[in-house]
Amino acid sequence: MFETPMTVVGRIITDPRRRIVGDQEVISFRVASNSRRRTAEGAWEPGNTLYITVNCWGKLVTGVGAGLYKGASVIAVGTVHTSEYEDREGAKRSSLEMRATAVGPDLARVIARIEQRPQPHSTDSPDAEDPGQDADAVNAGADTDPEADAEALALSA
Amino acid sequence: MFETPMTVVGRIITDPRRRIVGDQEVISFRVASNSRRRTAEGAWEPGNTLYITVNCWGKLVTGVGAGLYKGASVIAVGTVHTSEYEDREGAKRSSLEMRATAVGPDLARVIARIEQRPQPHSTDSPDAEDPGQDADAVNAGADTDPEADAEALALSA
Amino acid sequence: MFETPMTVVGRIITDPRRRIVGDQEVISFRVASNSRRRTAEGAWEPGNTLYITVNCWGKLVTGVGAGLYKGASVIAVGTVHTSEYEDREGAKRSSLEMRATAVGPDLARVIARIEQRPQPHSTDSPDAEDPGQDADAVNAGADTDPEADAEALALSA
Amino acid sequence: MFETPMTVVGRIITDPRRRIVGDQEVISFRVASNSRRRTAEGAWEPGNTLYITVNCWGKLVTGVGAGLYKGASVIAVGTVHTSEYEDREGAKRSSLEMRATAVGPDLARVIARIEQRPQPHSTDSPDAEDPGQDADAVNAGADTDPEADAEALALSA
Repeated sequence: MFETPMTVVGRIITDPRRRIVGDQEVISFRVASNSRRRTAEGAWEPGNTLYITVNCWGKLVTGVGAGLYKGASVIAVGTVHTSEYEDREGAKRSSLEMRATAVGPDLARVIARIEQRPQPHSTDSPDAEDPGQDADAVNAGADTDPEADAEALALSA
Repeated sequence: MFETPMTVVGRIITDPRRRIVGDQEVISFRVASNSRRRTAEGAWEPGNTLYITVNCWGKLVTGVGAGLYKGASVIAVGTVHTSEYEDREGAKRSSLEMRATAVGPDLARVIARIEQRPQPHSTDSPDAEDPGQDADAVNAGADTDPEADAEALALSA
Repeated sequence: MFETPMTVVGRIITDPRRRIVGDQEVISFRVASNSRRRTAEGAWEPGNTLYITVNCWGKLVTGVGAGLYKGASVIAVGTVHTSEYEDREGAKRSSLEMRATAVGPDLARVIARIEQRPQPHSTDSPDAEDPGQDADAVNAGADTDPEADAEALALSA
Repeated sequence: MFETPMTVVGRIITDPRRRIVGDQEVISFRVASNSRRRTAEGAWEPGNTLYITVNCWGKLVTGVGAGLYKGASVIAVGTVHTSEYEDREGAKRSSLEMRATAVGPDLARVIARIEQRPQPHSTDSPDAEDPGQDADAVNAGADTDPEADAEALALSA
């Protein structure tokens, strides 16, 4: 089987914590995602909450460290698993953990601006899972888009 | 059945286009998501590309209009469907469309800062699908988090 | 915000448990999803495991009760949240819970056959979130598929 | 970036088609997923439809070939991309394609029974992306489940 993908949209509820694991940096924070559901009468009522610890490695460390903080509305995309640990009393507990592949502020809830792209020869810890963005620049040209003509946007909303 | 959820991480390949549909504003743009896969020998090779039109309504219009542009690396979360339309020659074509619920810059690829939160009594088009963020403020307190003690972050990475 | 969608592919590790909550039946079971990842050298190594409790309501009760059991390989689709509870010693614990919308055996790992469709006027507990399958029958005709001609399947693999 | 994961729940609207690509078998079929949404008044109304071509390789060929057919309600899990092709008139068209990793009947809509597991030394085309199910058997034991005690199921519904 494969790693389980997940996307969470919510709010950061702890101060992001930066530390070294082995020879790599990681930033971790907790996210709470509150839901609500529409009742049979059409009203909204509060629903359940999902709590998750989001762990950001590699290229994400710089961007997350520079742009996010406790209270921020975020989108976090990655794969999830269950982590077991013992609390201070020695009791076994478990936590839902995400290894993030993409994280960003949620523009439905905040105004954010892109300031710069990371330097091409960054001194960040290398991201072993991503060979870099150069391939994107080559491949993402609009000329390879099968529906890039004007009608696609004009008629398909 | 239900609407099909999807998250796309990629690059905006068209200028975002703002227009009025009925009495609501919408911003639309195309996203290309390039993949690569690891071969049996452990090397990376370019994979397939996904193209999708992302449509942003309601509260997203302000944030997306202020912060995103062609070339930006983005995360887009929403539900997807197939749109049919006719091109200039009258031939039937189809397009994959997302109605976005959350959109943001991808901090694995860009530096972005949160500048402000939308005003609580915004003049934006009302978002019929979201009753507002007040409920979040009430519910997202760390004191309701079952794993908010220090061990959760310290031991679960 | 919205409920968080998730799909888990794994194995049922507890006997499915059927009970009554209010005036509705629910079947619950735990699923473990094991991952593995390809190393830089191209080999596979065992990865993390995700544990989740899957709760099946409404129309799912009949199909899950008839077809699944401990040890079966399953796909579970739904929305997830964190549930808090106290264990026998009174310690607070949390669990990842899914409210399933679709569940089925994973045909990558088992052989399964469809025996029948549920009766149209079933005596199952009503599923408050789904108005029934009649609308599907009307809408899902191949004649409304914009790409139903032979080329779509022949050339796009 | 990574391949885009997706789960579709819908109905098979074409006869599954089995063919050889290179030295591997693949079964492909189209799925239509109809949605409906609850209006502000609480009623349901038909929503948009998603069409997708699902391609099943490796271990999925046997299970899908044995158990699914046009009209069946299915869950399909995999990664998606856009495929370009030319129709009979030579016009460029595009299609949404899934490379499936897990497929099964939807027990919310059909009754299905597991008949057997695939033979351990199957003659199926090898699945290059999955090293086999043996690791699951080792890892998925309930004794490794941090929440396998009775309270987890009893209190967390």
